[in-house]
Amino acid sequence: MNAPLSSPLTFDAATAEVDSAAIAPFPNSTKVFIEGSRPDIRVPMRAVAQADTPASFGGEANPPVFVYDTSGPYTDPAARVDIRRGLAAMRAGWIAERGDTEQLSGPSSAYGAGRLLDPGLDALRFELQRQPRRAKAGANVTQMHYARQGIITPEMEFVALRENLQRRQYLAGLEASGPMGRRTAELLGRQHPGQSFGAHLPQDITPEFVRAEVARGRAIIPANINHPESEPMIIGRNFLVKINANIGNSAVTSSIGEEVEKMTWAIRWGADNVMDLSTGKHIHETREWIIRNSPVPIGTVPLYQALEKVNGKAEELTWEIYRDTLVEQAEQGVDYFTIHAGVRLAYVPMTAQRLTGIVSRGGSIMAKWCLAHHRESFLYTHFEEICDIMKAYDVAFSLGDGLRPGSIYDANDKAQLAELATLGELTQIAWRHDVQTMVEGPGHVPLHLIKENMDLQLAECREAPFYTLGPLTTDIAPGYDHITSGIGAATIGWYGTAMLCYVTPKEHLGLPDKADVKDGIITYKIAAHAADLAKGHPGAQIRDNALSKARFEFRWEDQFNLGLDPDKARAFHDETLPKESSKVAHFCSMCGPHFCSMKITQEVRAYAAANGVDEGQALARGMQEKAVEFVRGGAQLYREV
Amino acid sequence: MNAPLSSPLTFDAATAEVDSAAIAPFPNSTKVFIEGSRPDIRVPMRAVAQADTPASFGGEANPPVFVYDTSGPYTDPAARVDIRRGLAAMRAGWIAERGDTEQLSGPSSAYGAGRLLDPGLDALRFELQRQPRRAKAGANVTQMHYARQGIITPEMEFVALRENLQRRQYLAGLEASGPMGRRTAELLGRQHPGQSFGAHLPQDITPEFVRAEVARGRAIIPANINHPESEPMIIGRNFLVKINANIGNSAVTSSIGEEVEKMTWAIRWGADNVMDLSTGKHIHETREWIIRNSPVPIGTVPLYQALEKVNGKAEELTWEIYRDTLVEQAEQGVDYFTIHAGVRLAYVPMTAQRLTGIVSRGGSIMAKWCLAHHRESFLYTHFEEICDIMKAYDVAFSLGDGLRPGSIYDANDKAQLAELATLGELTQIAWRHDVQTMVEGPGHVPLHLIKENMDLQLAECREAPFYTLGPLTTDIAPGYDHITSGIGAATIGWYGTAMLCYVTPKEHLGLPDKADVKDGIITYKIAAHAADLAKGHPGAQIRDNALSKARFEFRWEDQFNLGLDPDKARAFHDETLPKESSKVAHFCSMCGPHFCSMKITQEVRAYAAANGVDEGQALARGMQEKAVEFVRGGAQLYREV
Repeated sequence: MNAPLSSPLTFDAATAEVDSAAIAPFPNSTKVFIEGSRPDIRVPMRAVAQADTPASFGGEANPPVFVYDTSGPYTDPAARVDIRRGLAAMRAGWIAERGDTEQLSGPSSAYGAGRLLDPGLDALRFELQRQPRRAKAGANVTQMHYARQGIITPEMEFVALRENLQRRQYLAGLEASGPMGRRTAELLGRQHPGQSFGAHLPQDITPEFVRAEVARGRAIIPANINHPESEPMIIGRNFLVKINANIGNSAVTSSIGEEVEKMTWAIRWGADNVMDLSTGKHIHETREWIIRNSPVPIGTVPLYQALEKVNGKAEELTWEIYRDTLVEQAEQGVDYFTIHAGVRLAYVPMTAQRLTGIVSRGGSIMAKWCLAHHRESFLYTHFEEICDIMKAYDVAFSLGDGLRPGSIYDANDKAQLAELATLGELTQIAWRHDVQTMVEGPGHVPLHLIKENMDLQLAECREAPFYTLGPLTTDIAPGYDHITSGIGAATIGWYGTAMLCYVTPKEHLGLPDKADVKDGIITYKIAAHAADLAKGHPGAQIRDNALSKARFEFRWEDQFNLGLDPDKARAFHDETLPKESSKVAHFCSMCGPHFCSMKITQEVRAYAAANGVDEGQALARGMQEKAVEFVRGGAQLYREV
Repeated sequence: MNAPLSSPLTFDAATAEVDSAAIAPFPNSTKVFIEGSRPDIRVPMRAVAQADTPASFGGEANPPVFVYDTSGPYTDPAARVDIRRGLAAMRAGWIAERGDTEQLSGPSSAYGAGRLLDPGLDALRFELQRQPRRAKAGANVTQMHYARQGIITPEMEFVALRENLQRRQYLAGLEASGPMGRRTAELLGRQHPGQSFGAHLPQDITPEFVRAEVARGRAIIPANINHPESEPMIIGRNFLVKINANIGNSAVTSSIGEEVEKMTWAIRWGADNVMDLSTGKHIHETREWIIRNSPVPIGTVPLYQALEKVNGKAEELTWEIYRDTLVEQAEQGVDYFTIHAGVRLAYVPMTAQRLTGIVSRGGSIMAKWCLAHHRESFLYTHFEEICDIMKAYDVAFSLGDGLRPGSIYDANDKAQLAELATLGELTQIAWRHDVQTMVEGPGHVPLHLIKENMDLQLAECREAPFYTLGPLTTDIAPGYDHITSGIGAATIGWYGTAMLCYVTPKEHLGLPDKADVKDGIITYKIAAHAADLAKGHPGAQIRDNALSKARFEFRWEDQFNLGLDPDKARAFHDETLPKESSKVAHFCSMCGPHFCSMKITQEVRAYAAANGVDEGQALARGMQEKAVEFVRGGAQLYREV
């Protein structure tokens, strides 16, 4: 987990190798593929095998649990991984068969074409044999466009299978296996009704439901036609909450090799999306390596590269340079672009009295441009032209929140909310072009002001997926901002945010290394799952129930393996009780072998069976039930003073 | 931070030394004492010095920020620390002058007396010269009893000064320093109005307010007369949210020295209370060492030791053995006892259908006793006699939630809620005896079911302080349960929980070491502070504002030092940019020296000053404000399907 990265700033394309940590198998797990309506729809999942329940606890079988798998071919023993060749172009056939795209003779951006011809880059370049594709003249190749025409694409079917995680089949299989299986199915399948704040969470996700949600704009499937290596996934409030991991080098540190390694490391631990925020040299080449090897959608902030092209001088940015950058990146296969088109000239002065000004890099670049020219942002004025590019490659918008608050002090201020209104307006424009769109959100927000962010976003952006950074719920813990923000992320995920952008422990302090990437991801997997449970996402509780059942039955290995990080759970356990024999022992280091609270439950069950569950004895219960009723009824005894 | 502990299971009283990490000074910090109405009321705080704002940002002075300080004399350079002698008995005079206690000739518990006479324990024993005190016959020496008689004790005054953190004086001093100071005071003092769910949070905490809250039972000051070394603190929903750290050895690992080290380590990082949950050998001696050296209240679960006395056979427990244990521990100075008196016989069978049964150790011991004897719990039937002991020493109740859920599956079930009703009933009984009481809560609870816990507790226990373990919001992350629970802790703290019991990364897996203790504490300091901000606790935002101001002004050292963990923040920063010079640089490793978003804000301010903040230009704003109004007005566009 803390394996050193390849040494900074050196990289050789000829000898590049996949990180061995990325292809290590998960303990006791099998990569499985669920086949769809056609043989080339093969949806990956990880099946985590379990031991039988010990005889003393009942002795039943515990079938493997299916978990969502973002790790791509790296954990598929049947796949041959060579990062110099990139991943197989799984979606190439689907894209080609639609007949609405054409293969170009080469990059149509000036910059992209130029980079190919630069011999100084030979040692760094990923040798892609394929030429880029683009929509045929007049065609719109977005998933939203297909959805609105009533077409269910293979991508949509893939996503539907993926979201369902086989839960119906899993529980049905258990039920069919006899009375013991029925009891297990009951235990594993039981779930608290959630509070979804208006989300609509069907028991089964059908391809048609996916199509309808994409058509409605309530969900997006980031799937650039030039990223055929990607495994389709969906972002929307009526689906599992997703997480994004940011990687990318900066002007002062790290190399291409490190960034590819961070990507494979990030998807291993559960990143649903990865953003490449590189800002140093060779970001074109770095991006190519990342995309060609990524099974998850890749996002970027094209403005960062455009700024490099004008040597960091924001005022020298032009629409033409920016446009060329969009085409360059779209033809590499970037799946979504963060575009800070909501930073309008009139909003910039609203940040003057802030404690921490404009902290979004993209936001401050555009603010500087607007001020230097005293003109409206070119991203705003050229927004429809941007839409035309997006729909020619199916790049999704991630409308950037360039005016997000950088401190608790600045949370929910007028600059932030004015920009949000504009993002709502831009969402409508994008939708008129059938361009998939999500909307970015803050930032630093105290717990009690988070809901307002979500409610306003839902209202202003008509339920376009919200994609938030944290939010951080306090500013006082540099070094632990994965946690200050994980609290906010779980909360806003519960309220309806569709994707949570992780924050690592290094936030505000430095660039994350692999250990930080993992800490950020696990924290955000926790936040996303806590949100799914709170929303009442169907089947979300199966994994909790299975893990708790394993815990209760002292199936230590199963407890580790069903967790988000089997390696750490095992290592922690072994620090105190390293012997293999203790992993089958019916006790743990907290209480020791002499006394164990869990064993007592067995006696309770025997007693209850012998005596009946005599609830009538509980005199206090009547009282208590009244109180429960009172509180559940929403009565308020305590009012604000 | 990861310094190795003294080797397990060895300890020598003659050579015991304080952990050097416990007495290291905090960077750029001074221990200050605020004097109360009499010279022996000296309330410790930590003043974190700051650099002036760089001239390019305005050049103003930034006076030291006062932060709550739980570290006791260990961080006082004027104090001589020798753990073999213990801390000074700061409260001894206050206790003696009340004239309602008497010094005993020795321990009045049979067990306590016996331990003193055992020469086999000489090498382990803390040599306390002082004899225990007890209330004079018929006297009640609890802070609640004094409060109800209208008496403001020195402890109450101490607490009032401590809670205020000098904020009024701090802001007034800034304001008086001239126009620049006024601007700084405005920035630092500004705070979002909170949502406190009925908590009453006055701008200034007066000694009279403390008295009234203690009298009302809404807050407790754990302050055993035999723990005169403690610095008074308060637990209640109308005060700062507090955190508790559990330490303690088990039958299989660790020594006395390690546990003292964990205590001093825990208070260094901000534990307001420490529970000693030791269960192995020599727990009497371990406890003595911890209490004599602890400036924070110490809690225990007396049942654990009582069980040791009957060799781990729950069914052999008797009221007499338990009673002797209470007296033994009360005379050592334990400030609060977790007592699982709500685990009634009738409730035990309600747990039979749980996924994870009874996971509380105390709960399962009592359940086993009840079943073995088919009788009502002796803790319940002897509750008034327990009250008589509590009030003779001012030990506070922490009414244990022995039936708390051990999994998401079991959250808010009938067993848990039936016990809560009984805890409410017992709270009333304790209050009739003027015994200070708090109530323990779960456990494992999904986010959306947390509020019900809080609301029911407030209703059933009439606002007696709630003291919760987490709750954990998902079961799927063993190794990261500080985070799964930190999310729940921040949430329930916001809703009104007065003290949060930390969970470390080792939860469910092993015993926490020092690194785990620190991770648990920092996570819970974050949760408690996020809750204070959300409640709108007056002045809570000053530290956030000061840190964000330092961040914005590139005062790196101040950013580190104002954080919860300066060591880690500095180390993280230095990993990427180790040079001292970069700590005064106006850039950071994320963007590099070429471009910096924060510098742009300076230009924005100049522009705004020159052009006026022309909000009229923002056409979208009218629309947007309507939406804000709509949402703030509580309108619901999206309803549950």
